[in-house]
Amino acid sequence: MMDDSALRASEFLDGLAARVGTAGLTTDADTLEPHLTEWRGLYRGAALAMAAPASTAEAAAVVRWCASHAVGIVPQGGNTGLVGGAIAHSSPQGPQIVLSASRLNRIIDLDRDNYTLTAQAGCVLAQLQAAAAQSDRLFPLSLAAEGSCQLGGNISTNAGGINVLRYGNMRDLVLGLEVILPDGEVLNVLRGLRKDNTGYDLKQLFIGAEGSLGFITAATCKLFPLPRSRATAWLAVDSPAAAVQLYAAAQDGVGQALVAYELISRVALDLVVKGISGCRDPLAEAAPWYVLVELADSAPGAESRLTEFLAAQLSSGGLRDGVVAASDSQAQSLWRLRHNISEAQKLAGAGIKHDVSVPISRVAEFIERGTRVAHELVPGSLVVAFGHLGDGNIHFNLNQPPGMEREAFLACWAPVSERIHALAIELGGSFSAEHGVGALKIADLARYRGGAELALMRRIKRALDPHGIMNPGKLFAASD
Amino acid sequence: MMDDSALRASEFLDGLAARVGTAGLTTDADTLEPHLTEWRGLYRGAALAMAAPASTAEAAAVVRWCASHAVGIVPQGGNTGLVGGAIAHSSPQGPQIVLSASRLNRIIDLDRDNYTLTAQAGCVLAQLQAAAAQSDRLFPLSLAAEGSCQLGGNISTNAGGINVLRYGNMRDLVLGLEVILPDGEVLNVLRGLRKDNTGYDLKQLFIGAEGSLGFITAATCKLFPLPRSRATAWLAVDSPAAAVQLYAAAQDGVGQALVAYELISRVALDLVVKGISGCRDPLAEAAPWYVLVELADSAPGAESRLTEFLAAQLSSGGLRDGVVAASDSQAQSLWRLRHNISEAQKLAGAGIKHDVSVPISRVAEFIERGTRVAHELVPGSLVVAFGHLGDGNIHFNLNQPPGMEREAFLACWAPVSERIHALAIELGGSFSAEHGVGALKIADLARYRGGAELALMRRIKRALDPHGIMNPGKLFAASD
Repeated sequence: MMDDSALRASEFLDGLAARVGTAGLTTDADTLEPHLTEWRGLYRGAALAMAAPASTAEAAAVVRWCASHAVGIVPQGGNTGLVGGAIAHSSPQGPQIVLSASRLNRIIDLDRDNYTLTAQAGCVLAQLQAAAAQSDRLFPLSLAAEGSCQLGGNISTNAGGINVLRYGNMRDLVLGLEVILPDGEVLNVLRGLRKDNTGYDLKQLFIGAEGSLGFITAATCKLFPLPRSRATAWLAVDSPAAAVQLYAAAQDGVGQALVAYELISRVALDLVVKGISGCRDPLAEAAPWYVLVELADSAPGAESRLTEFLAAQLSSGGLRDGVVAASDSQAQSLWRLRHNISEAQKLAGAGIKHDVSVPISRVAEFIERGTRVAHELVPGSLVVAFGHLGDGNIHFNLNQPPGMEREAFLACWAPVSERIHALAIELGGSFSAEHGVGALKIADLARYRGGAELALMRRIKRALDPHGIMNPGKLFAASD
Repeated sequence: MMDDSALRASEFLDGLAARVGTAGLTTDADTLEPHLTEWRGLYRGAALAMAAPASTAEAAAVVRWCASHAVGIVPQGGNTGLVGGAIAHSSPQGPQIVLSASRLNRIIDLDRDNYTLTAQAGCVLAQLQAAAAQSDRLFPLSLAAEGSCQLGGNISTNAGGINVLRYGNMRDLVLGLEVILPDGEVLNVLRGLRKDNTGYDLKQLFIGAEGSLGFITAATCKLFPLPRSRATAWLAVDSPAAAVQLYAAAQDGVGQALVAYELISRVALDLVVKGISGCRDPLAEAAPWYVLVELADSAPGAESRLTEFLAAQLSSGGLRDGVVAASDSQAQSLWRLRHNISEAQKLAGAGIKHDVSVPISRVAEFIERGTRVAHELVPGSLVVAFGHLGDGNIHFNLNQPPGMEREAFLACWAPVSERIHALAIELGGSFSAEHGVGALKIADLARYRGGAELALMRRIKRALDPHGIMNPGKLFAASD
């Protein structure tokens, strides 16, 4: 779209309607609104329209049409991201549309013997989990937004979640992809093979690329045996260092059945117990740190393995105290403590949040030094640290000190994050473990992944999307 | 090197010597010979020299020097590949050198708590396995050439082997890489993180790229808990279809401890028992197909789990017969039957070999139809089918019929492979599961991965290596 005249815009929209039908085109401001707004309200964008193709061919036609009119394309799934990656920003990048995967919502094939599921990109994660379970199989990706996030978004952000320890990130679960390239060509590498060494593994380019290299329309994913036995425990430990030692002991003691190993600080538990109704401390005595551990196995016996392991750890002093869930509902109560931390933090005031990872061996040092940084920069702030210890992924958050103004506290976000991210990097870590870069962390990407790394990313971007129409202004600064 | 004058060549070699020292440069024909020859004698190449840098900086200097003289670079590790990918072919691609990783043979770091190992690319696989075991950790990659193949080659070929079912291919084991790009720049993404969503996952480009996009100098790899209990069994089944059903039952019945599930035909067992001294049929009665199954767990109890599972399968008819190894040496005897199939085939005459994969659900159909193809094209040929059923990876081989001339039989390789590869592709499979493309399967790559897929591979190649100096004439035809 070389100029912004109403006539040209109208021609462009007519062409779009011809490609997706009226059912697939949204230009009405009210209907568009939720697709232009990040769910926490941190980002608000603008777009000419939203196109929702109902087939791969329609999606390809939309991309070709946009490419021929130099209109940017912002891929969107469930719009549950945390870094503004799915929000259109029509200025300064020029006109854009939102390209929604929502009508590509069909499960194409479930192959029980091959342990694979092939589905269109707009399938909601919970729908895929349910379809797998109905076929006595497990689709292991699980995260807070699973009721609304979509497969294509999960792949584009290389989603993590609570089962990464055992089953890996989304990248590890994808065997094949179908993608519309930025010129509208369809790349079909929708294969369901565990071994295939035939040239470059092209699907890897699009996993975690945040929609900047193409639009994912379908994927073939791994399935696993459905766990038949499960055991969950809440454990008290002295320190993050003790939690790291206990993790290695658990790897040895309970074997491959370990699926979750979550670290939770006393501060985080206190917030949940005080703020969320029906939540209570599972142990009689307070401890400084906790671990929520879960075993799952397709074979029976998870509970006895966990109980034996914990008895041995209690007697050897690797553990202060602990309780094993005696029922599913008790296990759910323990998980509720973990899942309500974010909500409890919100109730307790404003928060400054980080999604960092470090090698597991540096988690204790990171938390200790990070806490000192927090108290130095924001005296009196509450440090709420928790996360997926088995992945080295720590959500390191600060909560508003009593008596400090909300705005004054939030003004500390940038200087605090700068120090916390620099600390993670110093320890060999990452400034974005799960959430990605999107619009939020462009400066961090340039700072911490600069030099040969950023130069090569830009070379890949130029090779696949020379006109820069896929998700403009994400990952890289708009001026690039 | 714009012309071949002796003076220019000598200047080039002097410059190379200045970069790697005399200890790092080989020009002597006898010393070069084993590095120009594929170990089975199928490929023989030519090169100006072999450079073996002793550091990342030296490797980068060599690549820059070659780039500035338009001399091609053929990366080489242990030279154990099966598709000619590590062999230099100075014509028609112009002058080349072999760039050996062998002097980059240092283990840089082993982080027990983080379950990671960082090592230079020239480390031999067995050396890494031993270092991990000494630290009570498992480096799970295991394959026949482990006594001489090297880490860099394992990564460049995305090596598979016998533990893929549980631990994945090499791609799944790599967390970080250091690579010399084709212009001599060093890309260091040597991070040991399980979660890191900061832009494109650049390391994926180089894993399985067969040295065509850069020279790998070091890697950070995942380690796992060392298994403490192990159980191995030899099972008799009626058919490949029965083996596939038993596989699903085993996934459910013995859980995540399943590490190997190998399918072996009666024909293959007969060859081994007849040809290899000390090998005998573990069961009293003959059966048409066998499965070698192994469980390993960092927690105890693998043997009792396997025994209980097999008892249930015997009584339900999922299994004809079976024997569980009562000792490590019995387990080794069972594995010897599997590992000696290739050797036994060689003793029985010439062979036509395929390394295909199909979805697990299509394995039975593939073997049935493939066998008909074999007998149609080469009447009387012996079909020797075996492989990693849990990965859908079947080594589908034909042995010389009695009375047929060796040369006449080998002349059937191309027409047989064409039909077998086409069959694998028809069933959603791959013409190269583990071994790669190299020089051997360039035509297959163009035929079966053509269109948008091959075009995108070429775009990536041009973006990273515009002058085509990295492993020229591999993956793509020389004319490209």
